[in-house]
Amino acid sequence: MKESTKFPLAESEIPTAWYNLGADLELALAPPLHPRTFEPLGPDDLAALFPPSLIEQEMTRQRFIDIPGEVLDVYRLWRPTPLVRARRLERELGTGARLYYKYEGVSPAGSHKPNTAVAQAYYNRRDGTRRLTTETGAGQWGSALALGCAFFGLECTVYMVRVSYDQKPYRKALMRTYGAQVVPSPSPRTAAGREVLARDAASPGSLGIAISEAVEEAMADPGTRYALGSVLNHVLMHQTVIGLEARRQLELAGDHPDFVIGCFGGGSNFAGLAFPFIGLEARRPQIIAVEPAACPTLTRGVYAYDYGDSAGVAPVVRMYTLGHRFIPPRIHAGGLRYHGSAPMVSALVSRGEVLARAVGQRAVFEAAVRFAKAEGIVPAPESAHAVCVAIDLACEAAKTGGEPCILFGLSGHGHFDMGAYQSYLDGELEDYAYPAEAIAQAVSCLPGVSNA
Amino acid sequence: MKESTKFPLAESEIPTAWYNLGADLELALAPPLHPRTFEPLGPDDLAALFPPSLIEQEMTRQRFIDIPGEVLDVYRLWRPTPLVRARRLERELGTGARLYYKYEGVSPAGSHKPNTAVAQAYYNRRDGTRRLTTETGAGQWGSALALGCAFFGLECTVYMVRVSYDQKPYRKALMRTYGAQVVPSPSPRTAAGREVLARDAASPGSLGIAISEAVEEAMADPGTRYALGSVLNHVLMHQTVIGLEARRQLELAGDHPDFVIGCFGGGSNFAGLAFPFIGLEARRPQIIAVEPAACPTLTRGVYAYDYGDSAGVAPVVRMYTLGHRFIPPRIHAGGLRYHGSAPMVSALVSRGEVLARAVGQRAVFEAAVRFAKAEGIVPAPESAHAVCVAIDLACEAAKTGGEPCILFGLSGHGHFDMGAYQSYLDGELEDYAYPAEAIAQAVSCLPGVSNA
Repeated sequence: MKESTKFPLAESEIPTAWYNLGADLELALAPPLHPRTFEPLGPDDLAALFPPSLIEQEMTRQRFIDIPGEVLDVYRLWRPTPLVRARRLERELGTGARLYYKYEGVSPAGSHKPNTAVAQAYYNRRDGTRRLTTETGAGQWGSALALGCAFFGLECTVYMVRVSYDQKPYRKALMRTYGAQVVPSPSPRTAAGREVLARDAASPGSLGIAISEAVEEAMADPGTRYALGSVLNHVLMHQTVIGLEARRQLELAGDHPDFVIGCFGGGSNFAGLAFPFIGLEARRPQIIAVEPAACPTLTRGVYAYDYGDSAGVAPVVRMYTLGHRFIPPRIHAGGLRYHGSAPMVSALVSRGEVLARAVGQRAVFEAAVRFAKAEGIVPAPESAHAVCVAIDLACEAAKTGGEPCILFGLSGHGHFDMGAYQSYLDGELEDYAYPAEAIAQAVSCLPGVSNA
Repeated sequence: MKESTKFPLAESEIPTAWYNLGADLELALAPPLHPRTFEPLGPDDLAALFPPSLIEQEMTRQRFIDIPGEVLDVYRLWRPTPLVRARRLERELGTGARLYYKYEGVSPAGSHKPNTAVAQAYYNRRDGTRRLTTETGAGQWGSALALGCAFFGLECTVYMVRVSYDQKPYRKALMRTYGAQVVPSPSPRTAAGREVLARDAASPGSLGIAISEAVEEAMADPGTRYALGSVLNHVLMHQTVIGLEARRQLELAGDHPDFVIGCFGGGSNFAGLAFPFIGLEARRPQIIAVEPAACPTLTRGVYAYDYGDSAGVAPVVRMYTLGHRFIPPRIHAGGLRYHGSAPMVSALVSRGEVLARAVGQRAVFEAAVRFAKAEGIVPAPESAHAVCVAIDLACEAAKTGGEPCILFGLSGHGHFDMGAYQSYLDGELEDYAYPAEAIAQAVSCLPGVSNA
């Protein structure tokens, strides 16, 4: 009998409840504030944006939340996802480390994002929403929400960052295939978009601007609500199916992780993998969040109240931020471009319970190509950030003779991102290191709220 | 307990032997002929192109061929693949039919092609090959062989049909990520390519021309051999892991198919799914091969000896063919563009044991979008041909009150083919119906060999 490569779970072992880390850890999150009054937000303030059931999930202290049957029915299309022991990569690296990856790229949209998109579409339909708006950058989130809306019969409007809209027509076609309307942002449809276009008719857009537009449009129409693909508590919670499955699969493998590594943009993939290991393990692994050096929110940002969007129409939350007007350099190819970060993850980083690391993009793509040649799967550039640090640790172990068990999240495949690989293979990608002044200037643009 | 959606197999249930239908059916295949002498080919004639172990597999009458451990090690990265009951699609169609799809898009290259690419790379390395050449159209096969070569340390040169090379840069980037060299065909590197370029410097290329170039280059260098992604007996045999798994999974589902449907280009995906059901079932299902109306080899071609490539350097085989100079219309977006077909499948079609159907591309994409909205997965345009006929049969059942069990192959995902979806969504795809004279002219171009 060969040693196992995968550790499959039966369909009956898909988690039937999401895990809420907030119930187990006293994270003392600062309350989100209203973007104009800076008063703490109540459920009523959020009602224009989110349906009641998701607002309740956002605030809950309940430890486990049952996953509705209709959501499980959809999860069953691709879940449980594989946990794979990267035996070929281990051999290639000559390491004594045991490397496992949890692979979310088997979802129909090719990433982990449908775990929450499907849940959000379900609750919105149940609570009477007719249409959802959202923003997307590289397109992972937009296509996941388009998919969720197709499953539950909702209309879907996606504001897609202009530069991605032009450079990634395939992502746009995927969203349209699922029936969504895709609008390049900034657009003349919203006040926020018109304001940006008035300043710069050729604006490439940003995630923060696209959020402003999607939020504005949702607030203007009672049948329309807004969906966010990361950052918020309930979004992170929906993603915990990843870590819950991975824990069970590692148990089947007879192993226990010393390190759990996830890439970090807004925090949904990272938290989905890591939170169950943070809250439910008697022997907690070292947890590492990996972000791009070109958007170094956790490692070089400030922990402060900031707007969730560029125009200042979204709630103000306490988080690690580079300032809500931050835009990563054009040269950056690897996704994970959000200026802010999930408040729950921010709290854990500030307390030293999660380690944050930033990596340059050439190292990221070098690791991705190495992984692809050994394991076959071409990682999404986002996911490759986790691959990069996992390989670093495995090489370290090869030198020291250590034998750590390393679990990392492979949040998606890179089949929509081969343009970035092409740039890397053609030697066109450069690393970008921000001068300290550039970061200082970026983070100086914060709302006038006390951060005490 | 919910009714199951998927029917997972344990890693230990990956088939350990390929199935050779030729051992069970007396197909009386006409011998392949030398392209210049028209004498029957012996093993020696093939030795310049293929390694001894694959030539032996091509000729064997053995019923099951053990899969080498090193190949199984690679299969384990993504196999067993899912068998999914399309319950959401069934509901959407209001049909009493039970629809199952066997999904090969979970492989790292996104299609079924690695099943044979990995095996071919393994045997070539074992038999001393240093480099493999091949051709690719849309890119599924080229990226699969690039992957196989990366796993087994072989160099890989892929001749990619010029029009795809220009239109599908992402496929090219995938092959390069796996370390392959990608050459647009026709190229000035070969006599076959130079001849075409001399006639038409702007030639868009064709699969037949690319085969000529890859074969020529392999024959010119002793360390270089050639790999074909379809048509040949051993290639079809490697793909039978698909059908062998599907049979076991349907058994677990407590079901038995009345129809087995596969899309048809050269025949590898079709045969991989269908052959185990043809040769091993006491109660044989109705077997349907679905091809594009724009390349109607099985439904409008002739059953005759023809060259496998355009320039006439590849062996001459008896098969359904549209003539080796056939090029599908540019408007055709759905892959499956080969002028010929697998001799084994051709024999079964000629005997009426396999039913062939041709479908127009608008119906194909309509079915694909319907499937995507219900099941999430966006099918490769090739695979969507099978989806189209499966949906037709299910709708038929809805009318008649029948309750057939329908199994179809979903050979790959469409994430690399969203350009075709975009054309469809923009209303730019047209159906193409060949006038009878055009087909008659195409098939008139055959070698002067008796087809008695």
